[in-house]
Amino acid sequence: MTGVDKGHTHLRGPVLIIGTGLLGASIGLGLRRWGIDVVLSDTSPSAEAVAQDIGAGRLLQDAEPDFAPELVVCAPPPDVTAAVVVDALKRYPSAVVVDIASIKASVAAELKAAGADLSRYVGTHPMAGREKSGPVAARAELFTSMPWVLCPPADATGQAVKTAQALALDLGAIVAKMSVEEHDETVALISHLPQVLSSLVASRLQDTPPQALSLAGQGLRDVTRIAASDPSLWVQILGANASRLVDILYDVREDLNRLINTLEQPEAPGSRLDLAQLMSEGNAGQARIPGKHGAPPRAFAELTVLVDDVPGQIAKLLTEIGAVGVNLEDLRLEHSPGQQVGMVEVSVVPGKRTELIEALTERGWKVVS
Amino acid sequence: MTGVDKGHTHLRGPVLIIGTGLLGASIGLGLRRWGIDVVLSDTSPSAEAVAQDIGAGRLLQDAEPDFAPELVVCAPPPDVTAAVVVDALKRYPSAVVVDIASIKASVAAELKAAGADLSRYVGTHPMAGREKSGPVAARAELFTSMPWVLCPPADATGQAVKTAQALALDLGAIVAKMSVEEHDETVALISHLPQVLSSLVASRLQDTPPQALSLAGQGLRDVTRIAASDPSLWVQILGANASRLVDILYDVREDLNRLINTLEQPEAPGSRLDLAQLMSEGNAGQARIPGKHGAPPRAFAELTVLVDDVPGQIAKLLTEIGAVGVNLEDLRLEHSPGQQVGMVEVSVVPGKRTELIEALTERGWKVVS
Repeated sequence: MTGVDKGHTHLRGPVLIIGTGLLGASIGLGLRRWGIDVVLSDTSPSAEAVAQDIGAGRLLQDAEPDFAPELVVCAPPPDVTAAVVVDALKRYPSAVVVDIASIKASVAAELKAAGADLSRYVGTHPMAGREKSGPVAARAELFTSMPWVLCPPADATGQAVKTAQALALDLGAIVAKMSVEEHDETVALISHLPQVLSSLVASRLQDTPPQALSLAGQGLRDVTRIAASDPSLWVQILGANASRLVDILYDVREDLNRLINTLEQPEAPGSRLDLAQLMSEGNAGQARIPGKHGAPPRAFAELTVLVDDVPGQIAKLLTEIGAVGVNLEDLRLEHSPGQQVGMVEVSVVPGKRTELIEALTERGWKVVS
Repeated sequence: MTGVDKGHTHLRGPVLIIGTGLLGASIGLGLRRWGIDVVLSDTSPSAEAVAQDIGAGRLLQDAEPDFAPELVVCAPPPDVTAAVVVDALKRYPSAVVVDIASIKASVAAELKAAGADLSRYVGTHPMAGREKSGPVAARAELFTSMPWVLCPPADATGQAVKTAQALALDLGAIVAKMSVEEHDETVALISHLPQVLSSLVASRLQDTPPQALSLAGQGLRDVTRIAASDPSLWVQILGANASRLVDILYDVREDLNRLINTLEQPEAPGSRLDLAQLMSEGNAGQARIPGKHGAPPRAFAELTVLVDDVPGQIAKLLTEIGAVGVNLEDLRLEHSPGQQVGMVEVSVVPGKRTELIEALTERGWKVVS
C-alpha cells in the first residue's frame, strides 16, 4: 500500500454516476460542491429523482444526445457492479470508468472473464458508509478524511489512475493503493469480521426480556452498534468475499471452541490460564488499532467530567476547555439509563491533562478522573 | 425484577470497605461526599494507601479498638469474595454485609456451603466499571445513574435489604432486585457475551500489518473497545459464570457454523437467504437495546454537523444548539484518520430535528444529514 500526494488535478467533468444510493448520491453531492457537472442514473426512478432533488446532479435522461462523460462512477449494488462497468466501458468509449464496490477481487475476475478493456478502468473502494442507506441518507462530506482505496488493474493507463485519484481527492478522501487481493483480505478482517460478530451478538438479544435489556451498558451498545446495518447490502458483500472471510472465521471458531472447552470445565487445571490468554490476546489486538487522525494508538490522555443533563451544559464545558486553550482530541458521552446526569469523557494530549483538570476544577466543574 | 422507591434513608456509617480497587475506592469516594465515615482495608498496603490518599476514607489499622461498622462492603477480587463475606459476618456481628462481585450465584453457593448466617447479608452488583482498574482509576461518580442489582437471600432481614439499598442510592445508582440466577443469566448475555466476542475479534488483529489497520473504521473501534478490559478480573468473572455463558456460546457457535457453511458455498441455493437472515436477526436484536436514560430504543433523530478540528469549534456548535433551545440527547464524534476535519453526530428529539437543522444552517454550520 502506498500513499498519494495531496496536490492534485481536479476532475473537469462531466461525471456520470450510475446508481444513486447512499454512496452514489453522496459522491454527486460532493462533486457538485466544486461546480462539477454531475449526471445521475439509477434503475429506480424514485432513487434517481430523490438524488436529483437533494442536489446530487441532473438526470441522464435529460442529458444532451452527444453526452460524453470524463468519468463514469459505477455505484450499483455490489452484485451487478461488473456488468454495469462492462456496459459503461462500451457505452462511453472516451471515459474513465471506476466502480466503488466494497469487495474488489470478484469484480476484477468478472471483468476479466467478460474480456473488458481494462485500460480505462480502476477498481476503487471508499471506506465510508453509514448504518442508514439510500439517497436520503447521502451527504457531501461522507468521504471527508476517510480512506479511499484504489486497486488499478495492470492494464490501467496513468491517466485512468489519475482520474480515479482526482475523484477521491475532490471528495476529501485519503487515497491508498493496493492489489485487489490485499484489499479483500484487509476488509475481511477489519470490516466484515466485526460486522458478522456484531450481528451474532445482537441476534442473541431477540428474545431477551426488556427488564434484562434495561441493565445493558455501553459495552453491549458499542459491540452491537453496526448490527443495525443494511442486510441486503451485506448479503452481497459477504457473499462476494466469502472465501477470505471464512478463513478468518475458522480461526475465530477455533478460539471459540477453545473458550467453550475451558468454560465447560472451569475448575480444570490450566483453565484460568486459558481465559487469561484469551483476554490478553484481545488486549494486544485492540491496542494495535490506530487512533483518531491516524495517530498512534492510545496517544491521548482522558479525563471525565460530570455534567447535568440540561441544555447548554456540554457546550459550556467545551467552551471553557477552548478558553483554557486545550484542543479536544476526542469526546464521548456516557449513556445513563434513568437519570439526568451525564459523564463527558474528554481526550487531550497527555501534556495538557493536569493543566486542564486544574483549570476545570477551578471553574467549578466536577472532574471525576 | 422490581424497581425501588427513590426517597431513602441515608447510611449513617461507619462503612468498612474491604478491597480498595476501582470499585471499592470509588464507593469510598462516593460515600465521603455525604460525610459518611469510611474505613478502608486491602491486602495490598499500597492499594489501601492510594485509596486513602485520594480521599476514599481512613485506614482500618488506624480505627478505634471497638470499631463496629454499620455496613461492611466486600469488594475483593471475585474469587475470594465469599471467604471475605464469611469472615466479615463473623468479625462484625452487628453489621450488615454486602458484596459487589459481578457474579452472584457462585458466591451464594459458597456462602451456603460455609453455613454463613445470611440474615445480615445481601449480594449486590453495581453495573459500573471502566476499562481501567485500581484505586487510581476510582471516581466518586462511577455509579451515578447506573443500575445496581440487589440479590437478597431468602434469609435477609428487611433491615439488611434497606441498608444495601441505602448504599446504592447514596451513590446515585438505580436499584433493581432480582434472584441470583436471574442476575447471572442476564449478565452472561448482556455483559459476558459481548466481552468475549469483542476479545475474539480483537485477538485476530495481533498480526495484522499496520497499513491494513490504518484502514480501520469506527465499526471495528466500537466492536473492540471493551477488548481492552482487565484480564485478571475477567478470568474470575468468566470462570464463575462459566455454565451460563457457555450455554449462550453454544448458540453463538451454532450460528457461526451456519454462517461458515454458507460462506463455504456462497453460490449454493439458499445461501443469500441465510446471510440475509443472519443480518436481519442482528438488526432485530440490536433494535431492542434501550437508549440513553432507559428511553425506548431509537427514540431520537440524528443529524450530523461538519466541524473543523480547531479548539472551540465543537463548543461553539453546542453553544448554538443550546441557544436554539434544543436539548442534546446524545453526541458522537466520528474519528477521521489523517485529516483535521470531524463530524459531530447529534441526537435530539425527533420533533426538534428540522428546526435545529434550519437554525444551524442559518448560522453557517454545515449540516450534512
